[in-house]
Amino acid sequence: MSIKLHGYWRSTATYRVRIALNLKGVDYEYVPVHLVANGGEQHSMDYARLNPAHLVPTFVDEDEDIILNQSLAIIEYLDERYASDFRLIPEHKTERARVRALAQDIACDIQPVGNLRVLNALKGTFNASQDDVSVWAAHWITLGFDAIEKRLQTQSGKYCFDFDVTMADICLVPQVYNAKRFNIDMDQYPLISKIADNCNALEAFEKAKPENQIDAS
Amino acid sequence: MSIKLHGYWRSTATYRVRIALNLKGVDYEYVPVHLVANGGEQHSMDYARLNPAHLVPTFVDEDEDIILNQSLAIIEYLDERYASDFRLIPEHKTERARVRALAQDIACDIQPVGNLRVLNALKGTFNASQDDVSVWAAHWITLGFDAIEKRLQTQSGKYCFDFDVTMADICLVPQVYNAKRFNIDMDQYPLISKIADNCNALEAFEKAKPENQIDAS
Repeated sequence: MSIKLHGYWRSTATYRVRIALNLKGVDYEYVPVHLVANGGEQHSMDYARLNPAHLVPTFVDEDEDIILNQSLAIIEYLDERYASDFRLIPEHKTERARVRALAQDIACDIQPVGNLRVLNALKGTFNASQDDVSVWAAHWITLGFDAIEKRLQTQSGKYCFDFDVTMADICLVPQVYNAKRFNIDMDQYPLISKIADNCNALEAFEKAKPENQIDAS
Repeated sequence: MSIKLHGYWRSTATYRVRIALNLKGVDYEYVPVHLVANGGEQHSMDYARLNPAHLVPTFVDEDEDIILNQSLAIIEYLDERYASDFRLIPEHKTERARVRALAQDIACDIQPVGNLRVLNALKGTFNASQDDVSVWAAHWITLGFDAIEKRLQTQSGKYCFDFDVTMADICLVPQVYNAKRFNIDMDQYPLISKIADNCNALEAFEKAKPENQIDAS
């Protein structure tokens, strides 16, 4: 298969790309990279040649001779590569900008501060316990969701933007999954919760769920 | 003036948008938001109405009736709004993807983990000293720059991509500025250093420097 996605079932960044591939109807080969087993397979020499940052996901499109990291860059690439299909980023410039900003509210302000490597570093550097790092992760998710819930009050419909499923929803659903792992009370976020439920009713989101991946454990 | 940028002189995310505005030749009003004085002006009620995440920058385009956060979303918006000018994101889909990925290597993997609010939280939560948080910030910059230096070996020229200045350079230069604040030895990164020097020789980058802003202190 010419499209490969190297990733980890629980990685929310990988999860985003799986949803995008499914929404676009793109067949792909999923190559598991276990972030915990074997000292972290993302540190293997083979993987580091694909992605010198030792992070997932990495996307390969052999037909176009491109190896790409960064989930949002991959999603935008998919949207441009399969441009005739359903759009993940709308066409009008102000709508495009709002979709990107909301996606980045998650991908820049929430996810990076609470991901696995950061939580491990807190344990190693500051002797943080598992409880400490759970509180840490929950803090940043709460801060981020507080702001997103407010933004959704002015613009959302069935999805983050009333027009259709976009890259913003693709980022929101994995972050909600992650929030539940950290026991965030989602009743505080009725709009986020409703949108996540509406998305999860779609087959593209269902198929992309962590528990439905071959490397889930 | 119809374009306003609310930001902070030392914020690297604000610095990125200043460079993009200058490269595009867009006149704008700069509205300082002091992140430290007065308990943090980003927490004021007036500012929180503009940006419920209490983060900088916030960009306002009155003519298009849009208020936008997230530096990369703002930069892409500027590139689409002033599409006839010099492009910050190239036209071909694989080049666009690579530029976005490199920009996100900085905006998602480096900057969020070492920004002011995170360093303050480390002090508050884990009793970290100023030295501790400096080591923390330097660690993530080093990890990120190690990977970026490797990527640049396969693609860079005078700038991150040999074709021209792009959004990747717009993200790289502020991150180099930040790295120097944390005393990173930039001799480890000859390509990053050369590219930053080449960019800084351009007026658009010079005018955008933190020390050249009205709120610099």
